Amino acid sequence: TGGTVNLTSFSLLTAEVFLTKREEYEKLLNDGALMFQQVPLLEMDGMQLVQSKAILHYIAGKCSLYAKDHKERAMIDMYSEALSPTLIIMYPFKPAENTQIHLSNIEQKATDHFLPVFEKGLANSQFLVGNQLSRADVHLLEASLMLQELLPTILSAFPKIQKMKAFPTISKFLQPGSARKPPPDEVYVKTVMAVLKLRL
Amino acid sequence: TGGTVNLTSFSLLTAEVFLTKREEYEKLLNDGALMFQQVPLLEMDGMQLVQSKAILHYIAGKCSLYAKDHKERAMIDMYSEALSPTLIIMYPFKPAENTQIHLSNIEQKATDHFLPVFEKGLANSQFLVGNQLSRADVHLLEASLMLQELLPTILSAFPKIQKMKAFPTISKFLQPGSARKPPPDEVYVKTVMAVLKLRL
Repeated sequence: TGGTVNLTSFSLLTAEVFLTKREEYEKLLNDGALMFQQVPLLEMDGMQLVQSKAILHYIAGKCSLYAKDHKERAMIDMYSEALSPTLIIMYPFKPAENTQIHLSNIEQKATDHFLPVFEKGLANSQFLVGNQLSRADVHLLEASLMLQELLPTILSAFPKIQKMKAFPTISKFLQPGSARKPPPDEVYVKTVMAVLKLRL
Repeated sequence: TGGTVNLTSFSLLTAEVFLTKREEYEKLLNDGALMFQQVPLLEMDGMQLVQSKAILHYIAGKCSLYAKDHKERAMIDMYSEALSPTLIIMYPFKPAENTQIHLSNIEQKATDHFLPVFEKGLANSQFLVGNQLSRADVHLLEASLMLQELLPTILSAFPKIQKMKAFPTISKFLQPGSARKPPPDEVYVKTVMAVLKLRL
């Protein structure tokens, strides 16, 4: 429900555009750029791609972040689907009185159900699937960084996940001045709600 | 959140098992069969696949319901992601007093935003993408059948979508005695809630 897809690990984009006004969104709608009236939109290779997951699959395919083998691809999808960060993305949109409950919910799910599975997946390899970086690793990194922003000590019991940041491509990406976005603030929340005419 | 994935168009399964007791679900959990403690589970080719979409991608890949070309695959994903029938699947779980609102919501979204896009996608071909059946067509058929069960006349303005049922493989599949499941009834709802310990 944000303005554009968060293409954190890729440098394929010539321009990353964030919508800040309702009129910009309406222009996209009127131009017929949004097949299902929704952002994000990725314009690439002559296509106007919508649907976050379709976009992620396409980029992963282009950037060799997907296995060609059916079975490895299935493993990558299993891990990646479990990492859909909807809960975390919606956090800043929750009314203040529900913030603590929502945060406890995120912490409990992450600690009990998700992080242990990924820590185990990294037990014998620095990669979740096969012998190379896949979109599963990228999604795990993204989710673990988002979790840490909300819950600074949450990764302390998961050393293998913490170690991912040391992977050369990733550590370079995380250095100051990177394309990684700061955590959403009040301005971001207000902008998204105004552009998409959201009511909570 | 159902018992197994609905593999309507495939005959790859040797056994389709529906959970009817909490203990059956707990056995799967204790056996470590469910990577993220969730059903559906597909046991196939020596794997225990979980996450509905990972399962669907794997079957589509095996059954040539996915293009090999990156761009066609992106189109298939765009259409397929938009067809996630969560709204319809959750319908029978809504409290009786909200049924009408939920149904109007489904009807409005389908009629205004989704069905017109798919009708247009079928304007020049019997297939949504390329010159063969893909998982996008299968998902569209599934969603349109589910919609019709709830809203019998909803497809009347969408003749191309209605015509899909005449496609030989599909019309054969829809004949009496098929593997297609009946719409969920009260027994189904009670069973799912008991097995998964859901609270609404």
